[in-house]
Amino acid sequence: MCSPQIIEAVRGEVSRRRALGLAGAAVAAGFASRLPGAAAQTATPVAAGGGGATIALGSYTQVQDLTHTITPETPVFPGYPQPEFETVRNFDEHGFYAQMLSYVEHTGTHMDAPAHFVEGLAFANELPVAQFLAPLAVIDISERAASDPDAQVMPDDVLAWESEHGALPAGVFVAMNSGWAARIDDPEAFINMGDDDALHFPGFHPDATALLVEERDVVGIGVDTLSLDYGAATSFDTHVILLGAGKYGLEGLAALDAVPAAGGLVIVGGPKFQNASGGPSRVMALY
Amino acid sequence: MCSPQIIEAVRGEVSRRRALGLAGAAVAAGFASRLPGAAAQTATPVAAGGGGATIALGSYTQVQDLTHTITPETPVFPGYPQPEFETVRNFDEHGFYAQMLSYVEHTGTHMDAPAHFVEGLAFANELPVAQFLAPLAVIDISERAASDPDAQVMPDDVLAWESEHGALPAGVFVAMNSGWAARIDDPEAFINMGDDDALHFPGFHPDATALLVEERDVVGIGVDTLSLDYGAATSFDTHVILLGAGKYGLEGLAALDAVPAAGGLVIVGGPKFQNASGGPSRVMALY
Repeated sequence: MCSPQIIEAVRGEVSRRRALGLAGAAVAAGFASRLPGAAAQTATPVAAGGGGATIALGSYTQVQDLTHTITPETPVFPGYPQPEFETVRNFDEHGFYAQMLSYVEHTGTHMDAPAHFVEGLAFANELPVAQFLAPLAVIDISERAASDPDAQVMPDDVLAWESEHGALPAGVFVAMNSGWAARIDDPEAFINMGDDDALHFPGFHPDATALLVEERDVVGIGVDTLSLDYGAATSFDTHVILLGAGKYGLEGLAALDAVPAAGGLVIVGGPKFQNASGGPSRVMALY
Repeated sequence: MCSPQIIEAVRGEVSRRRALGLAGAAVAAGFASRLPGAAAQTATPVAAGGGGATIALGSYTQVQDLTHTITPETPVFPGYPQPEFETVRNFDEHGFYAQMLSYVEHTGTHMDAPAHFVEGLAFANELPVAQFLAPLAVIDISERAASDPDAQVMPDDVLAWESEHGALPAGVFVAMNSGWAARIDDPEAFINMGDDDALHFPGFHPDATALLVEERDVVGIGVDTLSLDYGAATSFDTHVILLGAGKYGLEGLAALDAVPAAGGLVIVGGPKFQNASGGPSRVMALY
């Protein structure tokens, strides 16, 4: 687990921001607003952070959906209700068709916003869209996870990715591919509650999260499992470190095995409901 | 209104597709699948149709959110219930925060899928993501709509756009800017029901829709009002023509006045709920 010092440091930073009334500003201060004049614009530059270089969008030729279809059987974190679908308009009676949907925001392929874990930080609907276009790095731990459902992305996995692909680019989104997406149609296997009543699925270790948040420049991280923290975690340190820093998380990502480990671009169609703690998102990758 | 012949032709075509069991295939046959080998791929090429040229993504430097925030007061088409938000997890009791949402799919900035109006055609979740990245053309009728809330995008408006900007590119998404987005926080003015009990807001005339669907190559069309058909329409011909052809619509778009009329790219973070007739979408533009 993450050292108590790291957790305390994050909580301390969060408290300082709240005390200073900087929560919204701090979260809005993505890479885009570092560019001269950006704050005054309605539109925000598609920048990759650091020096404000624009993303090399021209090199992509393929698009991959990274989103699972939400159904009434979609596996949800234990304690949450299943999503409900009701047909409220139909062809026979109304001449057209529509459904009413009811669900908790943390259902399916979805976003965790800073406000999900830290009061006063940004709701999902407040995140600037410039943060929804980011270089994509995929860290593959699927081989390890196949034999150990408690596998976590460790700092060494981040360093190994960089050894192979070079330094993580500024403004990057880092996703864990644990192979878990293949279980989506088997909710029991996806949730994977053990005889010990603990959940057993992979996630980001808090130390790796701290490395990415504090020593790299990420817009967010994502997993193909139910939670950013691995299932057996007894606290939510990865959530606190990531969301407390104003970054967002994505959970339940699909098809990460279909995109390259480096060089892609993630597009996050995040939710825009008032006071959203997160919510179902349409996530795509270009490569 | 559209000629009965056009409507009948569309309905006839739809019937033929259904009879042949081609509905899904016909809808999935976007520009991407015209490329050799595309059908066999998990990922689909980001192509602009016709000759399968890739989109010139490299020329964009700005991103603009085209999405309104959905609130309990968001104006909805008369007859639909207002969306409901319930806080189901809170910091005091649970240590974190989450909402439960309930809404009809046609709420806020949202998609209309072919299945919304034509039984057997594609649900929103079945549309290939390659159709969610498209050249963006904005037809501005805001000056006319300011004095006439019944203004419609006419075939002449399409031709005028082309006179100024050149032929509509293949695979284009055509959006109407009527200035209506400025009314979003005043539901009464947005819905604009008259003393005649008819709605009065702009939309696409069926003849313009038929021109775009039959003589141009669009992935979809969008409006900044409550409906693709203008408010006073007594039938939904524009819906039938567009959705019947397997294209999608977007309603309630925001900030179309902030993006250029030509040269942009729309990104549609469409819904991925099972059997979706449409649904709230995160829509962005690059330019």
